[in-house]
Amino acid sequence: MNFLGTHILSIDQFDTQDVEALFAVADQMQPYAQRKLKTRVLEGAILGSLFFEPSTRTRISFGCAFNLLGGQVRETTEIKASALAKGESLYDTARVISGYSDIIAMRHPMAGSVEEFSKASRVPVINAGDGAAEHPSQALLDLYTIKKELNISGEIDGLNIALVGDLKNGRTVHSLCKLLKLYKNISFTLISPIELKMPEEIIEELRKAGHQINETEDMQTGLHDKHTIYLTRIQEERFSSQQEANIYRGRFRLNQSTYTTHCQPNTVIMHPLPRDSRAEANELDNDLNQHPNLAIFRQADNGVLIRMALFALTLGVEKELHNTSSDVNWYTDRRF
Amino acid sequence: MNFLGTHILSIDQFDTQDVEALFAVADQMQPYAQRKLKTRVLEGAILGSLFFEPSTRTRISFGCAFNLLGGQVRETTEIKASALAKGESLYDTARVISGYSDIIAMRHPMAGSVEEFSKASRVPVINAGDGAAEHPSQALLDLYTIKKELNISGEIDGLNIALVGDLKNGRTVHSLCKLLKLYKNISFTLISPIELKMPEEIIEELRKAGHQINETEDMQTGLHDKHTIYLTRIQEERFSSQQEANIYRGRFRLNQSTYTTHCQPNTVIMHPLPRDSRAEANELDNDLNQHPNLAIFRQADNGVLIRMALFALTLGVEKELHNTSSDVNWYTDRRF
Amino acid sequence: MNFLGTHILSIDQFDTQDVEALFAVADQMQPYAQRKLKTRVLEGAILGSLFFEPSTRTRISFGCAFNLLGGQVRETTEIKASALAKGESLYDTARVISGYSDIIAMRHPMAGSVEEFSKASRVPVINAGDGAAEHPSQALLDLYTIKKELNISGEIDGLNIALVGDLKNGRTVHSLCKLLKLYKNISFTLISPIELKMPEEIIEELRKAGHQINETEDMQTGLHDKHTIYLTRIQEERFSSQQEANIYRGRFRLNQSTYTTHCQPNTVIMHPLPRDSRAEANELDNDLNQHPNLAIFRQADNGVLIRMALFALTLGVEKELHNTSSDVNWYTDRRF
Repeated sequence: MNFLGTHILSIDQFDTQDVEALFAVADQMQPYAQRKLKTRVLEGAILGSLFFEPSTRTRISFGCAFNLLGGQVRETTEIKASALAKGESLYDTARVISGYSDIIAMRHPMAGSVEEFSKASRVPVINAGDGAAEHPSQALLDLYTIKKELNISGEIDGLNIALVGDLKNGRTVHSLCKLLKLYKNISFTLISPIELKMPEEIIEELRKAGHQINETEDMQTGLHDKHTIYLTRIQEERFSSQQEANIYRGRFRLNQSTYTTHCQPNTVIMHPLPRDSRAEANELDNDLNQHPNLAIFRQADNGVLIRMALFALTLGVEKELHNTSSDVNWYTDRRF
Repeated sequence: MNFLGTHILSIDQFDTQDVEALFAVADQMQPYAQRKLKTRVLEGAILGSLFFEPSTRTRISFGCAFNLLGGQVRETTEIKASALAKGESLYDTARVISGYSDIIAMRHPMAGSVEEFSKASRVPVINAGDGAAEHPSQALLDLYTIKKELNISGEIDGLNIALVGDLKNGRTVHSLCKLLKLYKNISFTLISPIELKMPEEIIEELRKAGHQINETEDMQTGLHDKHTIYLTRIQEERFSSQQEANIYRGRFRLNQSTYTTHCQPNTVIMHPLPRDSRAEANELDNDLNQHPNLAIFRQADNGVLIRMALFALTLGVEKELHNTSSDVNWYTDRRF
Repeated sequence: MNFLGTHILSIDQFDTQDVEALFAVADQMQPYAQRKLKTRVLEGAILGSLFFEPSTRTRISFGCAFNLLGGQVRETTEIKASALAKGESLYDTARVISGYSDIIAMRHPMAGSVEEFSKASRVPVINAGDGAAEHPSQALLDLYTIKKELNISGEIDGLNIALVGDLKNGRTVHSLCKLLKLYKNISFTLISPIELKMPEEIIEELRKAGHQINETEDMQTGLHDKHTIYLTRIQEERFSSQQEANIYRGRFRLNQSTYTTHCQPNTVIMHPLPRDSRAEANELDNDLNQHPNLAIFRQADNGVLIRMALFALTLGVEKELHNTSSDVNWYTDRRF
């Protein structure tokens, strides 16, 4: 794919070469994200940040990534505060807001809405999550994290990964499967309540691509011999009632004791966040917070790198990054 | 009028020379708004963006305009989130917020509130809409659009325009009439349900100024021989009930067929947006979206130019724009 | 205290030398806050502005201060829009958001929450108010204002101050007492309804430190011989019902007539704002708005200086401020 001017809507747009090209640019973003250097490469550019569904983390991550490249951010955070509530079509919103922006990051509760929007947009659009459908930058940062944590420089063929929790409603695990499908001989262990199992069409696609699938409700045996465990929250907001969600909250939990007993000493622990730390859920216990293999916060940090890389590539400034760069002069010692 | 340091509260402040001066500066903003050039002329300046009533489009347009001049934006978007809810007077809010800002753009649901606020402000205030009263930057961008679309370089004397829809509650058509009144021999065709007709005092003023007024409920004949048709949405939020608004939604519609049959081949189609694209309203049909005379998105784009010009003139940097300008180095090809 | 990289959580961290060091830097911020100079010393840095409780004034003040140093601001304004509503711990929020930011300003409705957050943060955190507990930058700007208004260059020993209104629930008067406690021989006159009196533990601390306390319900005699009167709003939102709050609203009022009759001619009038200007409350009357000793808006202005100084010191750029400074080129005449 030629990134220049392209809408980033779906993992389906990517092949393994695209992924490697993106990750190479993400690597170059490290000194900027770690505040060793700063750059003004996008000084004067405006990110239109349209979050028609709340998501503090993803919204700030995109905004921060754009600021770190030197650009400005104009935000909309509520659908009710917008003209959409007065009957405006996505087409009109896109025509207008794309006139104000150089690039747009958009989240919307309706599957397919970001693609519809992008067709009318006059600037590149990055899908920051459209309902249960896609969230490509999350899958990319997840894979980037897997590679960094396992210190894999090339392809990730042969990866042995467990996905745990609400595999039916979790958008991030769907996108991650789509992305891992591009590689060879991945072994997926899918640990979930039977009612919340991974959609059959995704499993079919993975099988067709030659990957190995193991579905189970037994977490303990499922955790054996994994390079990576990817935990997810029960997506309460997708259930018809809180009571129904509560049936599943807390069923699969990883804590220090489970990890020590059932995992490899080097198994990487991931989670797309937020994790539900309330006592009745607590799918990933705080007693692992200091564990060196807990990658969840490095995973969030990597999101900034991936989003910086997506901005740089779609706007075509990935090679000019260093032209306007200089040393950071403020306090950063606590940082890492 | 001397723009420097002036509050922009009402179209009444403008004469035709002011309008021409503003439009000349707006013309200079084109290469910046189109991302051919960027400027840092307002680097370090802060726009206080106070939207005590939701308006994504106008809010982002003002913010974008200020960013394009190199400045920063600090925003407030909800009245309930503000000290006003704790009994603070507009006077206090103005004294405090104007201490944080170099210029303020303010929208408020109450007519006259922005003027009251401006009296206590220590920096220039631009009225971004106060209830049903005024929205001067909208009228200015509308007139700017008319001139650009019709390729009129001087005065717009002799213009033949139809205003269609909710002429009673539509703030933008009131402001536009006030502005057109400054010129000579304009022919206004006012097409609306009789219950939603243009307020009598505005019609009187136009007549007194020598303009020609034709009121009608017959859209088809009303559309004949017009240079410009300006459509508006039924302002549901100003009706006592949705049912009452629904009586009028959908009564006057422009679509491809109506346009071809009743309009001149060059009639310019305008709308202040948002248009209500729901089936029961749909005052301006999507089948005209590709029509070359549909000016509605260029109209929104022009809003950025007008707001940039208002900022530059009130802050006195209109002549320094190019001192800090440089080429844009990122992807902009999809843009126009 | 060494400010570099330090969380600013409580007035308890400060001794009088720290206060003087901070005020010296705040003094240097004057030409920037007054838009005589601009600086880019924090260009490229990001303030994470986390307001989990509404506060337009404080939020904009922090954001403005960071912008004036050349930095960018990423904001979150609503707890319901955040992952906290999905059960995320403050620990997780802190780990993630501190990865996006260079420094964080945080307000939260729960006492102690900002400190808890700071323990997990990888960047300095400034407490912008945690429930009824602390709001250190407010106390610092209040003391800075007292010194400026009374033209005191050194210690404020011997100050004679009256605190008036809701002394039980007003967080700002608690913090101010903590700060004044550091000095010698202060005379506090505490004027409040008996039910809303200053908490006994604060009075005890002040007495132990050798200060003089006079509690009264008689406002008129309480106002005599004061250098400064510090008025506060009845904190309605902390009462069990509006009715209960209304018992106290309007009981203690300062207006032109009261001031002339009972105050010294040079008594400085302060208020943390917002003041409740509704007729039934009106603790500080608008008829004093033009009075030269009404310091309330200079007090708000000083907040920007104090917050700029806190940012500069914790990020260690207080000596580099002028390296990237230049003259302001836009209109600022109305300002002061």
